[in-house]
Order: sequence, then structure tokens, then C-alpha cells
Amino acid sequence: MVIAVRNSFSTRLASTAAAVEGLFARLLDATPLADEIARPARLIEAMRHASLGGGKRLRPFLVVESAALFDVPAERALMAAAALECVHCYSLAHDDLPAMDDSDLRRGRPAVHRAFDEATAILAGDALLTLAFDVISRDEVHPNAEVRVALSRLLARTAGIGGMAGGQMLDLEGEGRFGAAAPPDIAQLQAMKTGTLLRFACVAGALLGEAPSEAREALDIYGRAFGEAFQIADDLLDVEGDAVALGKTTGQDAAAGKATSVSVLGIAGARARLAELTARADAALDRFGARADLLRDAARFVVERKS
Amino acid sequence: MVIAVRNSFSTRLASTAAAVEGLFARLLDATPLADEIARPARLIEAMRHASLGGGKRLRPFLVVESAALFDVPAERALMAAAALECVHCYSLAHDDLPAMDDSDLRRGRPAVHRAFDEATAILAGDALLTLAFDVISRDEVHPNAEVRVALSRLLARTAGIGGMAGGQMLDLEGEGRFGAAAPPDIAQLQAMKTGTLLRFACVAGALLGEAPSEAREALDIYGRAFGEAFQIADDLLDVEGDAVALGKTTGQDAAAGKATSVSVLGIAGARARLAELTARADAALDRFGARADLLRDAARFVVERKS
Repeated sequence: MVIAVRNSFSTRLASTAAAVEGLFARLLDATPLADEIARPARLIEAMRHASLGGGKRLRPFLVVESAALFDVPAERALMAAAALECVHCYSLAHDDLPAMDDSDLRRGRPAVHRAFDEATAILAGDALLTLAFDVISRDEVHPNAEVRVALSRLLARTAGIGGMAGGQMLDLEGEGRFGAAAPPDIAQLQAMKTGTLLRFACVAGALLGEAPSEAREALDIYGRAFGEAFQIADDLLDVEGDAVALGKTTGQDAAAGKATSVSVLGIAGARARLAELTARADAALDRFGARADLLRDAARFVVERKS
Repeated sequence: MVIAVRNSFSTRLASTAAAVEGLFARLLDATPLADEIARPARLIEAMRHASLGGGKRLRPFLVVESAALFDVPAERALMAAAALECVHCYSLAHDDLPAMDDSDLRRGRPAVHRAFDEATAILAGDALLTLAFDVISRDEVHPNAEVRVALSRLLARTAGIGGMAGGQMLDLEGEGRFGAAAPPDIAQLQAMKTGTLLRFACVAGALLGEAPSEAREALDIYGRAFGEAFQIADDLLDVEGDAVALGKTTGQDAAAGKATSVSVLGIAGARARLAELTARADAALDRFGARADLLRDAARFVVERKS
């Protein structure tokens, strides 16, 4: 029985990834341009490099499966998922820049600034972030403009000062590169930097489904636990993982002298925390019964993955 | 009579700039953060540096005055104006980066990456772009969510592939830094890179006012003429202007071997084109009568300014 669910999870994760890939290709080929506009081919190529051909597309999966709890049509959820994935891919392109984390490798391929150049990577990130807000506001996302505007505002807050961008700033400060700084609270920093997009993915499903506030709250709790578990698992992989399987450089955190959940909790402590978070994520889904099985599997997948 | 209108223009431009300045300070102090979030103080300081203390705030002025044609309350128009100005300020922070135009000076002060560092300047730009979409989707902009979502989508298209980011890419390609490239069409490039935000400013007024399509179209024509005139005047200032009065480095375009409207049209040709555009902008405003006098003055101001 567990095996059957796992097969169905892998299949669904792969099919969502394929659907997002197709949607991205379409968005980048056909995004409406204003009148008499020249197509900036190099920019679009760099955006394609940054967004296509890789990634498990976990965030889109979470949007689609959370939305499915409320019978939201998959086409709508996929549009919202693509907007979120634009934000994720922009953040990878910018985080990899020499001035930021200086990573040459991403998903087994050259980072955007290595495949192109720094200026193009900055612009491709900017344009992907911008495209997110174009896509999330389109009619195809939801017939009700109130829903679209709520998604757009939440996405902005997720990506902004109090979310991803703020978390990346705290992370850089924590490296001590701007002089002495109080060590950041790692759980808080990671909740901002990486947890927040995963949390958004789950809450977006409830918004798309115009779900009652209790259901939204349950998905928020699940999303937060998922986000923290995801980052701890990532920190463990950075210590124990294999660069070839991961398709990115490992051991970077230790090399940069960065505090992570593993350096704070230790490997055993991090594993114990993961178990706690998996239980919390599971419990939050109780109200949805068997319909939430794929979300339960997703939480387990994140904890147990090897790449 | 002309003198009276001009005094009233200068006064209104200054008062709008002061209002935007106050609103920015408030937005950056009090933008809602998610639960249990650490305030990334360095990021917010860099965003303040990028957005406060300078600029004529022409784009906000155009939003407020276009909206006033339809009796839109100034508070609402100012919120939309602040969102647009976030996009403008983000673009300046990123354009000034070493990998882009490599400018040390902006509005008479160090560019963001000089006052802080490159990573912080990239993040501050990202966070300002993101904040724009937070602000434009707030209830204070308009009670009707359809209007907010239309503004948000138009702002995204204005800033994205077919607008500002695309124009900046074409501009960099035109410098030949990525190998031989067909010389860009300067008018088209400038319409994308700088014209598009000014055009948005004017159309935003019509959207906020839920104006009939003919009025919106008239403001679009005005905005396009204004945008082209603005850039030609800017190109003339880069050739003829004074770095101290301008608060930024001059002669950069020629030094970079960049084609501009002046290098294409010559100084006399550029001046003739300016006169043509001013007449077109004036004519587009005919339907609004004396109510549009401040917008007429704005077009003249742009053409005649010395800094």
C-alpha cells in the first residue's frame, strides 16, 4: 500500500514537472509584448536557461496538490505554480552570482552567469521576478480578481523584505562579510530564505480554492513544517551528499564558515528535528483524510531524498 | 499667464515629490512582515538609499496628474505612483552595477553598490521590484480588485521582457559586449528601456479613474510622446550637460561608443524631433481642456530642463 502511494507520488511529481516545463516554454515564447517591441532574444534565452531543464519542481507540485484538495482545476493551479517557480528560478540565478554565493554549477549545468555573463544573469533574474507578477495576475489563474490580487500580494510579501530577499540578506550578513554581525537565528533565517516559498505554495492552494480559513491555516502549518524540513534535509545533503547526484557544489556552507541547522543542531539533532517536523506536517493534514496522501508523501520524500 | 501655470507646475512637482518621499519612508518602515520575521536592517537601509532623497519624481507626478483628470483621490494615485517609483529605483540600482553600466554616482550621491556593496545593491533592487507588486495590490490603491490586478499586470509588462528589462538587454547588446550584434533601433530600444515607465505612469491614471477607452488611448499617446521626448532630452544632456548639476556622470554614452538619439539624429535633428513630440503630446491632451495644463507643462519642462 505504501509502495503504491509512493509510485503514484513519483508519477505525479514527474507529470507536474513536465507540465510546468511545457508551460514555462510557452510563457517564454508567447508572453505578450507591448506594441512595436523588439524581442530581446539573449534575455529570453537566459531566462530559459534559468527556468527550463531541471529541478524537481517541488513548489509547483505543492501548489497543484494543495489546490486539488479544493477541486481547483489543474490548469489554473499550474499557472499560479509557474508564477511561483519564476520567483524560485530568479532567486537561484541571483544567488549564484559572484557577488552573492559565487556558484558555478546549478542543476548539473553552468549557472546563468557562467552560461551567459553577469549582466545577463542579473537581468534574467529581474525579468523572471517580473514575469511572476505578470503570470499571477492573468485571468487564467482565477476568474475572481480578488483571488488573483490576494495571491499577487502574498507572493510579493513571500519574496520580499520579510521573506526571501530579507533572508538572503541575513544569510550574507551571517557570513560576517559586512563586519561583525550578531549571529542570525538559523531557523528564522531559513524560514525567510527558503521556507517562505514552500509555505506560499501550500497556502496558494487554499487561496485558489477559496477555502475556509481553518483549511488555509492547516495548509500554512503543513507548509511551514515542510519548509523547515526541506532546509534541514538540504543542510544534511550539503554535509553528506554527492555533488554529481546533486548537480551542484557541496560542502559550500562549511567552506564559507556558514552556520546551518546541522552546525547548530548536529547531525543527530537535525535528524530528530526532521522526524518532529514530518509528524507535524502529517498531523496538519488530518482534516483532509486520504485526499492529502500525496502531500504526506511529499513531506517524506523531502526528508528521505538523496539528491 | 504662462508664468502662473509654470509656478503652479513647479509647486505641484515639488509637493508630489515630498508626498512620495514621505510615503516611501512609511512603506519601508512599516511594510507588513510575516510572523516571527527578523527585520533585515541592512537591506532596508540600502532600499532607503536607493529610493529616498532624490529625483524629481516625474513618474509619480504623471500618475497623480493623469489620475486627477478623472477625480481620483490623490492618496490612491500616490500609492500607485510609489509602486511605479519602486520599479524605477530598482532599475537605477541594478543599471549602476559594475556588471551593467558601472556608474559610481547617482543623484549626486554614491550609487547603491558604492554606498553598500554589490550583493546588497542586487538584493535591494530585487526587494524594491518585489515591493512594487506588494504596494500596487493593496486595497488603498483602489477599492476594485479588477483595477488593481490590471495595474499590476500592466506594471509587470512595463518592467519585463517587452519593456524595461528587455530594453536594457538590447542596450547592452548594442554596445557590442557580447560579440557582433545588429545595431539596435534606437527609438525602439529607448521606448522599451525608459519610455515604457513614463507611458505606464500616464495610462495608470486612466486605469485608476476607470476612464473610457478613448481617454485612456489619449493618455497613452501623450505618455509615449513624453517618454521619447524625455529620453532625447536626456541624451542631449549627456552631451551638453554638467555633471555637478545633473548629479551623475556625463559623457558616458559617447565614452561607451553607445548609439543614442543624438548620435543618430544629430543635435539639430534631436531638437527638431523634440518639438514634434511636444506638439504631439499637447494635441493628445486637447480632449481634457485646461484640466490637463499641468501635464502640458510637464512635457515642456522635460524638453527645456537643464538638469
